[in-house]
Amino acid sequence: MHIISTFARAAAREVFATMLNIEVAANETEDDIAKPPIEISGVSGGVSFTGKMTGILYLNLTDGLAKAAANRILGDDPNRPADEVNDVVGELTNMVTGNLKSKMADRGFNCALSIPTVLRGLKVSVDNLQSPLSLTSSFNVPEINETLNICIFARLEE
Amino acid sequence: MHIISTFARAAAREVFATMLNIEVAANETEDDIAKPPIEISGVSGGVSFTGKMTGILYLNLTDGLAKAAANRILGDDPNRPADEVNDVVGELTNMVTGNLKSKMADRGFNCALSIPTVLRGLKVSVDNLQSPLSLTSSFNVPEINETLNICIFARLEE
Repeated sequence: MHIISTFARAAAREVFATMLNIEVAANETEDDIAKPPIEISGVSGGVSFTGKMTGILYLNLTDGLAKAAANRILGDDPNRPADEVNDVVGELTNMVTGNLKSKMADRGFNCALSIPTVLRGLKVSVDNLQSPLSLTSSFNVPEINETLNICIFARLEE
Repeated sequence: MHIISTFARAAAREVFATMLNIEVAANETEDDIAKPPIEISGVSGGVSFTGKMTGILYLNLTDGLAKAAANRILGDDPNRPADEVNDVVGELTNMVTGNLKSKMADRGFNCALSIPTVLRGLKVSVDNLQSPLSLTSSFNVPEINETLNICIFARLEE
């Protein structure tokens, strides 16, 4: 498994445990090397990075997980507006990417983060043709029976 | 109109004229200030930037315009694979963002570009809640009766 995937999986576990008190478990038997395009549904945050590590991390939540995450942070609201959910997903993506950035910086791959954007849509295809690394990780969220995915396109500079 | 919109519109005109020999005309009467989320369809390239200007630029082409652009660069092919079209859209987005980066650097707002990604989907909603600037520009492409859109989320640091 690529070191970026190892760090990204740890980042997701740490952020979801700390911020949401939700356990997410990576499917460690799945290969992390993906062949784009990658299809995402639900609510996805995206944060880009540039530097010794350049690329983008998408944190892809099912609708149910995104709503549950918003309820954990903002309090229960059955009529939660979509923009509040988007804000929480954007911030979670920021924190997971920031955690990955910190871990990669310790290995000498410093980078700067861009601002988070949030995509929603059914079957959005995300393609990337210029980065050598396309990595995916899927997670189960047993407590609420939802799933989480991370998709990373990246290039490392020695 | 924000200086970023002025520069982005010039960048699109220059890149489409130089690379594709296609004239694109911005709808100058439309306000460039957008209220996210913004809905995009067709084929969209996205390139992020970090530095004195931080954010992301989406270049959103109709399917017809994306195919026409690929035919101009790669030669006519009625059975063009989607990945080749994506590659051309990603590269055009890279060039438009690079042109904007260069113009903004002349004003003191240096930034580094990330790698392009390409999104496809019907009615993909793109939201951003952490950047003060949300800017859109729409263009007509009279020669082939298609449209082009640019969506930029950005933050400037003085």
